[in-house]
Amino acid sequence: MWPFKAMYTGSVKFSEGIEWAIHCVAVLAGLPEGATLSNAALAEYHGISESYLVKHLKVLARVGILDSVPGPRGGFRLERSADRITLYDIVEAIEGKEPMFQCEEIRGRFPGCPQQNFARPCEIHAAMLKAEMEWRKSLQGVTIRDIQQQVRVSEEQRQLREAWLQKHVRLPVR
Amino acid sequence: MWPFKAMYTGSVKFSEGIEWAIHCVAVLAGLPEGATLSNAALAEYHGISESYLVKHLKVLARVGILDSVPGPRGGFRLERSADRITLYDIVEAIEGKEPMFQCEEIRGRFPGCPQQNFARPCEIHAAMLKAEMEWRKSLQGVTIRDIQQQVRVSEEQRQLREAWLQKHVRLPVR
Repeated sequence: MWPFKAMYTGSVKFSEGIEWAIHCVAVLAGLPEGATLSNAALAEYHGISESYLVKHLKVLARVGILDSVPGPRGGFRLERSADRITLYDIVEAIEGKEPMFQCEEIRGRFPGCPQQNFARPCEIHAAMLKAEMEWRKSLQGVTIRDIQQQVRVSEEQRQLREAWLQKHVRLPVR
Repeated sequence: MWPFKAMYTGSVKFSEGIEWAIHCVAVLAGLPEGATLSNAALAEYHGISESYLVKHLKVLARVGILDSVPGPRGGFRLERSADRITLYDIVEAIEGKEPMFQCEEIRGRFPGCPQQNFARPCEIHAAMLKAEMEWRKSLQGVTIRDIQQQVRVSEEQRQLREAWLQKHVRLPVR
């Protein structure tokens, strides 16, 4: 029997949760100090399913990117400053730390091969991991603060967003 | 109804076909001029299913990385020189050209948003694509010739491979 697992074809894609999570963190970064938005508000703002979104928000809270505030005035807010949250932090929270390229060490499978005889890691594996490192480094170099500062919207957009946020934001009790 | 697609969780992974394809191209790069290996031989050498592997080999032939030689002495060989085949060429052949991050433009979904009002691409989208570009650039910088030159195997391994290849290689008719 061949040592293979089920193959899938087609191109590799990130979960939509990544786009949702980054946008939610970016919106929360624009709230007043201590203020929160509920799951429902974040889902409505982004036009996505609340039940799917909340799973991702909980993951972001678990890894210390978001703070989940309980109670009737509760919701989510940033756990740490937007300049200390990189895009990679969010991607890693949602997708995990495992490399995209999984080496099965097939170089050692040929008939009669004494597998233990490899002195060095597989060169193909090493090159694939190096490329992922470049991808990771690029995402680690962009913070949510950077994104906030780059965003340009029209005055009409700004006013619409502002009005929506004022209706939904939950300010902390003083 | 919410505009969402089925979500999947867990980390994003490349198809095993990528590892298979790169290793096959690297082995073929070591053959004498014009010589081929059959699907069956390449599958046996790497301990993988021939029927799954052949799909990938055909894709590599379709994009001009491999040459598929018909007939009883036929099989696969490189279509072009190993220093003109990068790891990215192979990854793109197997996984396609589509970016891993798919932007659904959720920035424009909030209630009442005039979506056409965005003057610039989404900043989050742009940062995610830039990271993929770094990954791509890294893989474009490594050729199959580079991999060949990096590989170090023990004398025992070398002899085993040599013996196996001599039994399976199909030399061109003179």
